[in-house]
Amino acid sequence: MSQPLSKQAGPTLLTAIDFYFDFASPYGYLASELIDALAARYGRQVHWHPSLLGAAFKVSGAPLPVRQPLKGDYLLRDFARSARFLGIPYVQPMKFPLSTQHAARAFLWARDIDPLAAKGLAHAIFRAYFTANRDIDNIETVLDIAASLGHARAPLAEALSGVALKERLHLEVDRALARGVFGSPFFMVDGEAFWGVDRLPQLEHWLAEDGF
Amino acid sequence: MSQPLSKQAGPTLLTAIDFYFDFASPYGYLASELIDALAARYGRQVHWHPSLLGAAFKVSGAPLPVRQPLKGDYLLRDFARSARFLGIPYVQPMKFPLSTQHAARAFLWARDIDPLAAKGLAHAIFRAYFTANRDIDNIETVLDIAASLGHARAPLAEALSGVALKERLHLEVDRALARGVFGSPFFMVDGEAFWGVDRLPQLEHWLAEDGF
Repeated sequence: MSQPLSKQAGPTLLTAIDFYFDFASPYGYLASELIDALAARYGRQVHWHPSLLGAAFKVSGAPLPVRQPLKGDYLLRDFARSARFLGIPYVQPMKFPLSTQHAARAFLWARDIDPLAAKGLAHAIFRAYFTANRDIDNIETVLDIAASLGHARAPLAEALSGVALKERLHLEVDRALARGVFGSPFFMVDGEAFWGVDRLPQLEHWLAEDGF
Repeated sequence: MSQPLSKQAGPTLLTAIDFYFDFASPYGYLASELIDALAARYGRQVHWHPSLLGAAFKVSGAPLPVRQPLKGDYLLRDFARSARFLGIPYVQPMKFPLSTQHAARAFLWARDIDPLAAKGLAHAIFRAYFTANRDIDNIETVLDIAASLGHARAPLAEALSGVALKERLHLEVDRALARGVFGSPFFMVDGEAFWGVDRLPQLEHWLAEDGF
């Protein structure tokens, strides 16, 4: 994971890309399928941060996009078309959007144990919701998904019902807002922010050119 | 302009792309610099439709994006970065956003006389605003820009102060809303809608593949 350090002029240590997402965000799901491979092509790590979009919408004062007249209909069509365009499986979930606290907390719990395994859990949750219509707002569903990846069910169930993990997520959401994160997916690298899966080409250009 | 018609099976007549925009929209300006060349590569015409975003925001209930906390700061940065990414000159106007009724009405007036010349006028208005910081909300500025392209000043001034052109724009805005246009730029082709300059790659793929 770490690169050799040298006191001489050596290769610059590349900072990680911060990737913020909400598990109910279709564009966040699409980005989750692409960001690590993209980053790896430029020698970058990606730190994943589950967030809750509801908090950001509250600050912005905007109604939920899919609830807005005109825009809502368009977005449902654009989610599926963008997935086809990017070559990623997508099935519009029946229950949409939904709250994602349990999923986000499960990710934080898993990340403390093993960041790589946590990404595997995030992929499994995203895919369960956006390709298999599973209700990830249901705590049992989240536990089932985690268990299917080999996570012990009892300790996660206990953590999800406790106060510590709730406060932990609260803190993460506050931190994201303080950094200016207002949507999903949202990327920050070298102090530059990119919002939306449709900004991945600009993010890639940024990595390739070291800014532009 | 017209293609040869045949009663036998012949080349399909390709429908035009409808391009909706607001003269105060940075992404609309960026799209205006790209859409005709893109369409021409696939043998498509483009019909330009000036609209007023204020009407769409009213329907959606959303506050103006650049006035939203967090998002507003991001957008100012993204306008300029998107322009650099696309290789298009861009200077953030001081007065932003502003109302664009005069500009939109001048376009409709010019289009009745000559659709091609109207596009030239639209380019000149967009560039005056987004590269030279000119106040296109000022009716004299719009008249100056039109005059610089050889449009007679007096008849345009008269039309801009009359009721007919105002009703004409009102009708255009209502029509756009009725078709589901809620942002700028907004494209419709073969019944498919594309919102945003960042959807041009999908629009191009659509034209290349005849849908996807």
